[in-house]
Parts: sequence; structure tokens; C-alpha cells
Amino acid sequence: MLRFRRIRSRSMALCAPLTPEDMMVQSMPDASPAKWHLAHTTWFFERFVLERNAAYRPAHPEWHFLLNSYYQTVGPMHSRPRRGLLSRPSVAQIRGYREQVDEEICEWLSRGVDATTANIIELGLEHEQQHQELLLTDIKHAFFSNPLLPVYTDVLASSPAAAPVPMTFVTGREGIVAIGHQGSGFSFDNESPRHRTLLQPHALANRLVTNAEFAAFVHDGGYEEPSLWLSEGWDTVCREQWRRPFYWQDDLASEFTLAGVQPIHPDAPVSHVSYFEADAFARWAGARLPTEAEWESAAAALPVQGNLLDAMTLHPQAAATGAGMLQMFGDVWEWTASPYVSYPGFKPLAGALGEYNGKFMCGQWVLRGGSCATPREHLRATYRNFFPPHARWQFMGIRLGQDR
Amino acid sequence: MLRFRRIRSRSMALCAPLTPEDMMVQSMPDASPAKWHLAHTTWFFERFVLERNAAYRPAHPEWHFLLNSYYQTVGPMHSRPRRGLLSRPSVAQIRGYREQVDEEICEWLSRGVDATTANIIELGLEHEQQHQELLLTDIKHAFFSNPLLPVYTDVLASSPAAAPVPMTFVTGREGIVAIGHQGSGFSFDNESPRHRTLLQPHALANRLVTNAEFAAFVHDGGYEEPSLWLSEGWDTVCREQWRRPFYWQDDLASEFTLAGVQPIHPDAPVSHVSYFEADAFARWAGARLPTEAEWESAAAALPVQGNLLDAMTLHPQAAATGAGMLQMFGDVWEWTASPYVSYPGFKPLAGALGEYNGKFMCGQWVLRGGSCATPREHLRATYRNFFPPHARWQFMGIRLGQDR
Amino acid sequence: MLRFRRIRSRSMALCAPLTPEDMMVQSMPDASPAKWHLAHTTWFFERFVLERNAAYRPAHPEWHFLLNSYYQTVGPMHSRPRRGLLSRPSVAQIRGYREQVDEEICEWLSRGVDATTANIIELGLEHEQQHQELLLTDIKHAFFSNPLLPVYTDVLASSPAAAPVPMTFVTGREGIVAIGHQGSGFSFDNESPRHRTLLQPHALANRLVTNAEFAAFVHDGGYEEPSLWLSEGWDTVCREQWRRPFYWQDDLASEFTLAGVQPIHPDAPVSHVSYFEADAFARWAGARLPTEAEWESAAAALPVQGNLLDAMTLHPQAAATGAGMLQMFGDVWEWTASPYVSYPGFKPLAGALGEYNGKFMCGQWVLRGGSCATPREHLRATYRNFFPPHARWQFMGIRLGQDR
Amino acid sequence: MLRFRRIRSRSMALCAPLTPEDMMVQSMPDASPAKWHLAHTTWFFERFVLERNAAYRPAHPEWHFLLNSYYQTVGPMHSRPRRGLLSRPSVAQIRGYREQVDEEICEWLSRGVDATTANIIELGLEHEQQHQELLLTDIKHAFFSNPLLPVYTDVLASSPAAAPVPMTFVTGREGIVAIGHQGSGFSFDNESPRHRTLLQPHALANRLVTNAEFAAFVHDGGYEEPSLWLSEGWDTVCREQWRRPFYWQDDLASEFTLAGVQPIHPDAPVSHVSYFEADAFARWAGARLPTEAEWESAAAALPVQGNLLDAMTLHPQAAATGAGMLQMFGDVWEWTASPYVSYPGFKPLAGALGEYNGKFMCGQWVLRGGSCATPREHLRATYRNFFPPHARWQFMGIRLGQDR
Ligand SMILES: [Fe+3]
Ligand SMILES: [Fe+3]
Ligand SMILES: [Fe+3]
Ligand SMILES: [Fe+3]
Repeated sequence: MLRFRRIRSRSMALCAPLTPEDMMVQSMPDASPAKWHLAHTTWFFERFVLERNAAYRPAHPEWHFLLNSYYQTVGPMHSRPRRGLLSRPSVAQIRGYREQVDEEICEWLSRGVDATTANIIELGLEHEQQHQELLLTDIKHAFFSNPLLPVYTDVLASSPAAAPVPMTFVTGREGIVAIGHQGSGFSFDNESPRHRTLLQPHALANRLVTNAEFAAFVHDGGYEEPSLWLSEGWDTVCREQWRRPFYWQDDLASEFTLAGVQPIHPDAPVSHVSYFEADAFARWAGARLPTEAEWESAAAALPVQGNLLDAMTLHPQAAATGAGMLQMFGDVWEWTASPYVSYPGFKPLAGALGEYNGKFMCGQWVLRGGSCATPREHLRATYRNFFPPHARWQFMGIRLGQDR
Repeated sequence: MLRFRRIRSRSMALCAPLTPEDMMVQSMPDASPAKWHLAHTTWFFERFVLERNAAYRPAHPEWHFLLNSYYQTVGPMHSRPRRGLLSRPSVAQIRGYREQVDEEICEWLSRGVDATTANIIELGLEHEQQHQELLLTDIKHAFFSNPLLPVYTDVLASSPAAAPVPMTFVTGREGIVAIGHQGSGFSFDNESPRHRTLLQPHALANRLVTNAEFAAFVHDGGYEEPSLWLSEGWDTVCREQWRRPFYWQDDLASEFTLAGVQPIHPDAPVSHVSYFEADAFARWAGARLPTEAEWESAAAALPVQGNLLDAMTLHPQAAATGAGMLQMFGDVWEWTASPYVSYPGFKPLAGALGEYNGKFMCGQWVLRGGSCATPREHLRATYRNFFPPHARWQFMGIRLGQDR
Repeated sequence: MLRFRRIRSRSMALCAPLTPEDMMVQSMPDASPAKWHLAHTTWFFERFVLERNAAYRPAHPEWHFLLNSYYQTVGPMHSRPRRGLLSRPSVAQIRGYREQVDEEICEWLSRGVDATTANIIELGLEHEQQHQELLLTDIKHAFFSNPLLPVYTDVLASSPAAAPVPMTFVTGREGIVAIGHQGSGFSFDNESPRHRTLLQPHALANRLVTNAEFAAFVHDGGYEEPSLWLSEGWDTVCREQWRRPFYWQDDLASEFTLAGVQPIHPDAPVSHVSYFEADAFARWAGARLPTEAEWESAAAALPVQGNLLDAMTLHPQAAATGAGMLQMFGDVWEWTASPYVSYPGFKPLAGALGEYNGKFMCGQWVLRGGSCATPREHLRATYRNFFPPHARWQFMGIRLGQDR
Repeated sequence: MLRFRRIRSRSMALCAPLTPEDMMVQSMPDASPAKWHLAHTTWFFERFVLERNAAYRPAHPEWHFLLNSYYQTVGPMHSRPRRGLLSRPSVAQIRGYREQVDEEICEWLSRGVDATTANIIELGLEHEQQHQELLLTDIKHAFFSNPLLPVYTDVLASSPAAAPVPMTFVTGREGIVAIGHQGSGFSFDNESPRHRTLLQPHALANRLVTNAEFAAFVHDGGYEEPSLWLSEGWDTVCREQWRRPFYWQDDLASEFTLAGVQPIHPDAPVSHVSYFEADAFARWAGARLPTEAEWESAAAALPVQGNLLDAMTLHPQAAATGAGMLQMFGDVWEWTASPYVSYPGFKPLAGALGEYNGKFMCGQWVLRGGSCATPREHLRATYRNFFPPHARWQFMGIRLGQDR
């Protein structure tokens, strides 16, 4: 219950710098207003936990329509791109809703819950943490959409001023390995079943691609050379007039961050690049992106630590000198060469919660390793994040791989 | 100065029922958030009055870009459909901005101002009042966009329960008449010059078309019969699946109002219909819409009184029994058969303020007579409002005319 | 019957330079393939004349759906923007269809027809001639859409090399005049009733605006100065990146014509400009466009002669020296300042043919005087053509007017 | 050389039933006009073979822009969705172009060519055969777009009237297998390198899913149940109002074929379904789609024979009784569960021809096995076709797979 309260309260804490007006903004259809994140995660507990009790009376049954994200099985839902029009319920009402639902859940927890309910509460907390990351990336996008470029925080931890770490390639395992989740801890259904897969001879870079390295690609005309790009990527570059990572200013020397416009640190990992840019950069560099199996194989034995949300830097940091694989967890999600598909023998969760992951297995690419906006306890080596290839508003970056 | 303070403070008073979140909503590109209305009207005074003084330092020069609506001559401007993303400046900052600019203006006024400045201040107050009406119609639209259907006011003045007034046709003047504004009071440039025009033999209905009359059109299949419609109107009916006035519920018995969903009063004027619907209704009724010259000729001698904003009914009311032309002012703007073009010899205002009206003289139709959301002192018989033929979110209705 | 055969055969003659492939092209939704023009005009006779005889069996009843343009009253119709997909019926089949329907009509004519039928046949011939002009302007657009820029004709009559005619302004009538059609000859319903209207003091230019004059506007930055443009016009300029008349090449020295790319003759009338450009040019020139009543009043007494289709120049020609009003008929349709609305007391034709004109009276502007693609016998001083303000693919130009 | 002439002449033969008008139609952006197919495949030989000889002078250098499909490296290209506007070059000119280029190639061949040139000529012939299939599927779509529903052929081979073959599942190989092309024959770059992959325990259906089986899915409400669909698939079903396979009529009893509307044969394979429908059907059936490795492993030892283009049935046929895997080649392309990505160690062709396949490895799914429109000599067990998940206009169908 302590954990429940700790995780739930962090969502509110992350909103502390925001005004009620800030919490209204939906700056693109893929993003959601901060207040919607607060309400939707609460609805998740109400709908999937509290309503397991047939005697439960929803606090605001008319909100279900507004707060259902994409669960077709539990009823119709408000149009996603119109979430920013919902001035009611107000932030104050949503705060009250959170408190009310939290009390109900805690009361259940204090009385003891059956295993299934406990599992769904656990899922709800993982869901809450996913939305904490989205809340931050959506607010970053919302503030960037305002020509006044407001700041979320005044303090931005800057990377330590040390010599940059050279990029080297570390040979990975080869042959049959097992990947995917197994064991007693929590995992999403898409991480299962653990299964055997075949790794080709390969090596992975010891660290992430830096801003300085990506700037070299820009200066070399990377955004003007169609032969470096996937066809759909090149169409996107031309249509959207992409010339640099999403939050870079056009001087290529400064970038928008959650602390406002800041100088670009050359040794910090490049961030806010799409799959198309990651893939083109790798081709330009004579390398390729890792597969998700290669990545997981390299990460499996490493501790889950790094520049994660708990550090509250809210920005990717330069790699600190060290041996072995660096920056595997935190800083930026790493695009892989793997389309997001089911593992062999995949079984979605039963019922409506089966819509959580499986139905998105089309047209997206897997990212691994978490970012500076990912809660530490939410992450695992087997964790599969996924986004469409044009997405750039998450903390997304690049690690190179090679055939051996 | 009293008048200045009175008009300016009404804008704030109209926002009293709104939360900061409500004031963020932009529910369609044609509408603006309430807070933007408050800020833009203030910017108008700052930009066009205070900056006449070369020594004036703008309170927030970086806001000019955000608050310029469409004055190309004074600089670039924020994208109109993205006004709803501007959480900053906050409502509190905008309130401060209003107070600061008001103090500056009042100080000027107290010192005495030259005639040109006085004229621009007067224009600013008329502009403020235009935005008061828009603020109300935009909030009505914003609340309608929320499935919770919030209410702006709990009190809706209902029409008096009297016998409906029969519709009769009153013969108008014929031959050469003069229309347009002349004299010392304020008017917009598009009302000038006063000029001679030729009226054909005609008559106008003594009152507005009622909900009951429009319902008869609906029940008679008016929305299914293409021969009643202009070609572009019929395309719109099909594409948008129009079946009734904008705020009517599909039971045809209740409608969304600023006091929430209410029963439709059969004798109240139909409202929230487009030019296409007004034109189709008139054809179905064997009549036509009045020209703006016919309307103005009939209205010229009447006092400007009726169900206007000052009555705070915020809803059209049934006509009270009476002789002569009823409901000429207030209740709903009346669509005319006149495209919005310049009067012969029209001269726009000099400089940037010349962009106020003239550049919109294409693709719009003239409406006359004000509505229940129009401030009384803002209205005149010569006043020309204008909207595109598909617009429905204003209080817009129908008066019939006939050839004689 | 001779006239019937002469007019009908000209449609085929105009297609002589075209291959079957050329006759398939629909280069934008507003244009139609040449073969569709040939078939649709034939269908008009079949549907509105031959089917008056209840015993008539349509040649191809399944074609009605394909060849109905916009007559909702006579049945459903094929999607307009998809006319270019109809490879069947083939050109050969359509030629056969024309011959078959022509034989039927001629047989009727030879037996004598009642007055109503005769009137509809006359309407059909006027309709045929309208489509002859469209066929030419659509083919010009179709060929321009092909990077190979094919030519329709090898011979382009060039303007005579004479001194340019100076522009002077001729004072027009003032006060009440009558406009509109009256009398025994053919006219469209939208030219009636003849009615009184009031002309303000004014003058009209003696000739059309030339290419050299329009080039001066371009060189003076006319396309970069928003204060010259209507708001919707400026939006269009920015969105479509308009920088010159539609068929001008970007050297401003040559233009695409029905004889391919040719040098721009400085003294020939500028053509293929939208209402927005005509209006902006007039404002830049310190003038305005004529109203349609002013134009008709000036044209009423003039013979219908000029550079019309019968001359087969297929291109506007420089004005020949002369007194009085020049180029009133032919060369280019002249944009007026008058929105296209009904005349007072307008009555559309009965039945389906009432859809011919009246339902388009919204969002369009009147043009007068015919062009180098208009058949001479099709034209009159009272003739009202109309297009939306952004249209440029017709032969459309500018005559200036002035207040006096 | 005989093979060159035989393959090239088949393209012309496939156009024999088409009029010049038919060969103009581009009924959607993804499709191309038949004449463009004829010209583009010829351009491929001219551009990539004949221009290897520096002395060669292109027959029509100004056509390069029109006939380049997507090779950014060799120059700019005409807009793909506007191919249907190109009435010139005419069909007759394109026929001449084909003959001219064929003579040049044959002359080279008769003199003997180096190995690289021979390889590119071979690639050109495979390319020609790909476009033969597209030409047929594009014409089918073009004719379907015409409400007259013209027929390409009068003769449609009907399936033999035998008892339907029961569906059984055949266990496949398990463990490490090699897939991909190796050896001396032709293959595309995307089939290489041959590499080891790991097969999970699985079984594949012995035959394709039939129309009767798919109809059961339709009758069971398959198109109305969101839980059966991928999220993007469900969005597509709703937006496009999909209710049945693309060419089925709404009576579910007849379908559009290259021989016009015909009864649906219950035992013939269902065709013209998207990946979304294949995936939803498999889920409904309690099965899944095969991976491409599973498919290739099952197909590797089988002869390439079946209902292919050479049989000229132009329609999928019911499976004939038989043991083992049926219908592996021909009838319909089989959607697999594999996103289209590169094989480990993939190297695209050098130069512009490297754009042939690799740049499309994003957002598409692999199909295997060829269809009734695929030339027999063009097919192999290692052949990887690919289309976006919503595509339906190819002959595309379903084979089920299972975990074991
Ligand atoms: Fe969620
Ligand atoms: Fe304003
Ligand atoms: Fe027509
Ligand atoms: Fe090709």
C-alpha cells in the first residue's frame, strides 16, 4: 500500500509546476493533456479494479466515456484528438477523483485482496508509471508549441565536463539464446513467453550516439541525401521539412528542454530522433541498429540503473567513463531494428486488458532501455516499448550495432 | 472614462462563471479561447492606442505575436487554429495585463486625448463589444463540445407563455432610398458612405421565423429535398449530415443553450441556422430573404431595443404581441440575401485598421439586427455583420421577405 | 436543323486534334475529359428532349448515371472528380451515341416540334456551346499538366504589331437603368427579369488590362504585399504560392497557350487570373472592378463582335486602335465586382432544368463579355458567366472601373 | 534473346483486350495506367542497360522524368498519383519506343554482353514480369472503378466441381533451418543472404482458406467485433466501412473478376483481403498466420507449379484433391506474420538499383507463393513479395498456421 501511495503521489508531484491552464493543453493528437493523464490512470483503477466488486458504484459514471483510452471491450470512448477540449472535469475535480479512488483501493488493500486483483493493481501501477513518462514528454511538447517557450523546471542537471568516452564495439553472444520475461516479478504480456531465438554474429556500441556525432551527420548533408533513407522516411523528411532532431534550434547549437532552451552538450546522447533518422544515421555511419534480441542479450545481466526519472535530471546525460556497455538503461529509449510483433506463443491477457498491448503489433518498432523520464522500478531488461517510425516526441535515441 | 471602464469590465464579468480551464478551450478553428478574447482586446488598445505614443514601452512585447488576430500590416501572428494551445500567458497574467493597459488608457483619457486617438479608443470599445458577443458564442460551442454539456448559467429566462404572434407581411418602401451611416456617432467603415440605392417592390415579415415553423420544415423533409437548396448548401447538408439546427437535440424537442439542455420553445425564434438553411427554409415557405437595403429601410426609424445582451436572457425569446415590425433588434442576427460587398465609394480606414473590415468582402453574407448576445449600445440600424454561409455557431435566424 | 447540325458538329471538330488518350484526361476535379463533354451534351438532348416522348427507349440507359452532371432531380450521378476513370464508353461509342441521338432529334425537327420542345432544343444548343468553351479550357489545362506540354494547334494567331492603345476612362450612364434580358431571342433564366437598377457615377476603361500592365504589378511586388489583397485571396496566394498568372512561365516572358509555350505579347490582355488577382491589381492601380450593371449598360448598344471562338485565334489579342469601348466582347471574360446572385423577381426554369443556374448563386462572381473560346452566336450583352474567386483556368481577365 | 522477346511480348499480349482509353486509367495512387507499365519497363532497360554504353543516345530523353518510378539516384520524377494525366506519349508512341529499345537490346545480346550487363538485363526481365502482374491487378481495379464494370476477358476458367478438400494441419520442421536464396539462378537482393533461422514448433494448413470459410467469418460478425482486429485494422474497417473482401458484391454471393461479375465459388480461395482481414480471420479461427520462414521451409522442396499466370485462369481455383501441402504456389499471395525487413547481413545492389527493394523495408508485410497473375518462371520458394497491411487490390489470401 505504501508503494501504491508512493507511485500514485508521484503523478501529482510531477504536475506541481503546472498551472490548470497548462494541464489543459493537447498539442497534437498523439499527446494528451496532463489532467487527462491524471484522470485516465485513476479511471483504470476504478474500471478494472473497483468495478470487480459488483456492489461498487462509480464515482462519476458519465466520465467513463471521457477517460477510456482505447478499450473497445468496455464501451465507447471520446475522440482522442479532442481530449484538449475537456475543461470539465476540472483539475480540482480530478484531484478529488484521485483521492476518492485511492481511498477505495487502499481500503481493499488493507482488507487483503485476491491474487487476480493484486495483479491488476500491479498492472495499474505500471500503467500509472507509463503515463508519468508520457505526462512529461507531452508537457515538453505542449510547452514547445507555445512561442513563449515556458519552462517546466528551472534546474537542468548538466552533463559532467569530462573527456568524451570513445565509441567501441563489443561483441555479443551468438547462437541460440533465450529472451523474454520469466519468473515471479511483474511484466507485460508482450514480454512473454520467454523463448529461444537465434543471434547472428554481431557487436553493439558501448554507448549511445552523441549530439556531436549526430551533428556531423547533419553537416555532412545527411538530411539531403535520399540514398541514406527508407522511402517512407525520405517522404517524411521532404513533407515535414526535417533538418535536425525535433527539439534542436536551427542554429544546431541549442535545444529546447524541460528547462527551456539550453546549449546542446556535444557528448550527451542525441535525443528526439525518429526511427527514420536513427536508421539513416546508422546507414551513414556504416553500421546498423541492434535487433531487440541482441539488445536484450547484452542487457540481461546488467543492473537497472542509469539516468532514469528518479534522478530527475529530465535530460539525457553524457556517458561517464567506464568499461563495458554504458547507458543501457536510461537517458533515451534506443530504437531497434525490430518491428514490434508478438513473441512465438504470445497470449494476450484475458478480457479487456488483452487490448493493452497486442492490438498495436503493426506498423511500430521496438525501443529498449528506458529514458531519463522512465521510473526506475518500472523498467526491466525485457521491457519492450514501441512507437511508429515517425515519432520523435519521446526521449528516443540511437545505439549502433554491427554484423561480425 | 466611465464608459471605458464599464465596457471593459463587462468582458471580465462575462467570464465570471468560467474556470481557468474553460477559458483555454478552442473547440474549432473559427472560435477562440475566452482568455484569448480578453488578451486580444487588450492588445488592440495597446497596439493601436498606447503605441501611438513613441515613448510607450509595451508591457509584454513578446505577446504581440500571440495576440495579433489578422493585422498583416503590424507584423506576423500566431496560427489561428492553435490559440487553444497557449496555456501561457495564464488567466492571471492576462488579468494583470488588462489592468495595466486600462490604467494607461485611463491616464491618457484623464489628461485629454486628441480626436484621432479618441476615435481609435472608441473603435477599441466597439471591438471589445464584438468580442463580448464572440466570447459567449464561443463558450457555448466549447461547452457543447464536451459530452458532459456543462452550463454557463443556471438561469435561463424563458419566453412568456402567450399566444403566438401571427406572421404578416408589411409592405416596405419602394424606389430610391438612402442607406448607410452618416452623422456624428460611431460607425464602422463598412457602413459608409451613405448612398442611394433602389428598392424593388417588397414586403417583410413582421417577426422572426419560430422554432415551430422551422420544425415544420424539418418534418416536411426539408433536409432531404435537394431542390430546396443551393448546390453548395446541399453538399454541406450531405457531407456534414445536417438534419436540424445546430444546437437542437435529435428528439427535435430540446436544444443546448447557455443554461444547458432545455425544451425548445415553439414560439421562440429559430436560431443557429446557416445561410444555407435560411435560404432553403425561405424557398420552402414560398418566400425569400430580405436584402440588406430592405431591412435597413424598415429598421431605420425604429429604436434600438429588444432582447439584447443587456437583458441577459442569453437566449432568443418569443415575440411579444405588438404592431409593426417586431424583433428587428436582438434575439438573433437575421441572414439577408445580400453578399457582403463594399458600398459604392467605400474607403477603408487608413493604415493597419483598414484591415478591420474591407478585406473580408468575399464569400460572406450580411446579417442584420443583433442578437441576444449583442450589447445594446454597440448596435445600430446601419450595422453590417457578416459570416460565411455555412456558419451556425452565432445566434443566427431568419426573417422572411417577399416580392410585391 | 442546319443550325443544330452545325453546332453539334463543331464539338466534334474541336476534338479533331485530340487522340483518344487526350480525350480521357481530367486534370483537376473542376475539369472534365473531352469525351465526357461530348457524351454529356448528347445525354442532355436525350434526357431532356427525346425522353419527352414516352415511347422513346434510351440508347444506353446505364449511361445516364455517368453522364448526368448535377441534376439531382433526374437521378443519382457519378462522382465528378472520377470522370477521368471512365475508359468506357469509348470515344468510338460516344461518337456513335452522338450520331444516334442527332438522328432522332433531326427526325423530330423534320416532323416539326412544339414550342416547349423547340425551347429545350435551343437550350441544348446553348448548353453545347458552353461545353465547347469548357472543352477547350479543360484541354489547355490537361496539356499543361503534362510535363511534355503538348500542343493543341500549331498555329497561333499573333497580335498585330501596332502601337499599344492608351488606356482611357469613359464615363458611363448614371441613375436608373434597366438591365437583364427581354425579348424574343434565347437567354438563360439568370438573365431575367429585366429590371431597373441604380448606377452610381462611374467610368470604365476603354480596353482590357494588358500583359505589360500586369507585369508591372508583378515587378512592383504585388504578390508579396498583403494589403492589396482580400483576406481569402492572400491566404490563397500563400498556400498556392501564386506569383504570376496561371499559365505564365517563371521567366515572366513566355506563357503556355493552346499552341504550346509562346512569348508573352505585352499588349495582349492578361488572362488566366483569378478574381483575387483582378481585385488586387485594381486596388494597386488605384481603381476598382466594374459592377455587372455598369458593364452591361456600356455593352448594351455594341455589336457582339470581337476575338471570339469563330476567329479561331484561341488566344487573347492586343486591342486594335479605335474609339470608344474596345474588347468588350471576346478575348477574355471580364471579372466584375458583382457577386453572382439572382435578379429581383428571378424565376428559375420549371422542373429539373431549374437546376441549370439558380442553385449556384453562392460564393461566385459574375464575369461578362465572352472570350476567345466563346462561340459568337452564344453571346449577348446580358450574358452572365460566373466562377468562384480562385478559378483561373478559363480565359479570364480584367477591365478597370472608377468612381466618378 | 528468345527469352527476352518472349517475356517482352507477353506484356503487349496482356494489353490486347484493352483500348487506348483503358490504358490511360489510374484508378488510385497505388495503381498505374497500363501504358505507363509498358513504358516504364522499357525505360528500365534503356536507363539501366543501354545507357551503360556512353555513346547511347536516349530515344526520348524528356520521357525519363515521366517514366522513372522511384529511383532518386538517377534523377527527379513525375508525381506518382498523376500518371493517369499523361495522354502523351500515346500508346502508339510507347509501342514504337518498346520496339526501338528491344532492337537495341537484341543487337547487344547478339553481339554478346558482359556478365554485369547480362545480370541487369535479367533483372529487367524479372522487373517486366512483376509489372505484368501489376498490369493485370491495376486493370482489374480500373474496371471495377467504372460503374459499367467492363470485362477484361470473356472466358473465366471455373473451378472443377469436386468435393472440397478438408483443411488439415501439417507439422513443419523445427529448430535451425536455412532460408534465403543461394546458387546460380536469379534472385532479388532481398532474398539474400541465405542464413540460419530458428523455427518454433508449428504446423501449416494444407490448403488456402476458402470463400466458404471466409463467408462464415463474415456471417459470424467478424467485421463488427473489434476484439478480433489489430487497432489499426479496426480503424480501417470503421473508416472505410469494410464489410467483406474487396471485390465481393454485397450479396456475398458474387464477386467482380477479370471476366466481370461472377458467382463466388465456395471452395476457391478467398482473395483480395488485406493483412488486417487475414490476421483477424486467423484470430477468429483460433489460429495464426505462418511466418515467412515457416512458409519457405515448407515450400523449399516443392516444384514451382500451380494456378499461375501461364494457366491464364486469371482467378484463384479450388484446391484439387491431393496429399501434402496444396496451393503453395499460385492462386493467391499468402500473407505471412512477418514484417518485411532485411535478412541478417543484407547488402542492397550497388548504385541506383540498390533502391529496388531495400528502401521499402518499413511498414509492410511479407507475402509468399505467387498468384494466378504471377508468371511461373518469375517465381521461387525464396521469393518475398511485400505490401502495406491495408492493401487489397492484389490477389491476396490466407493460409493458416498453428503453434505446436
Ligand atoms: Fe493508458
Ligand atoms: Fe478582434
Ligand atoms: Fe452541362
Ligand atoms: Fe518498376
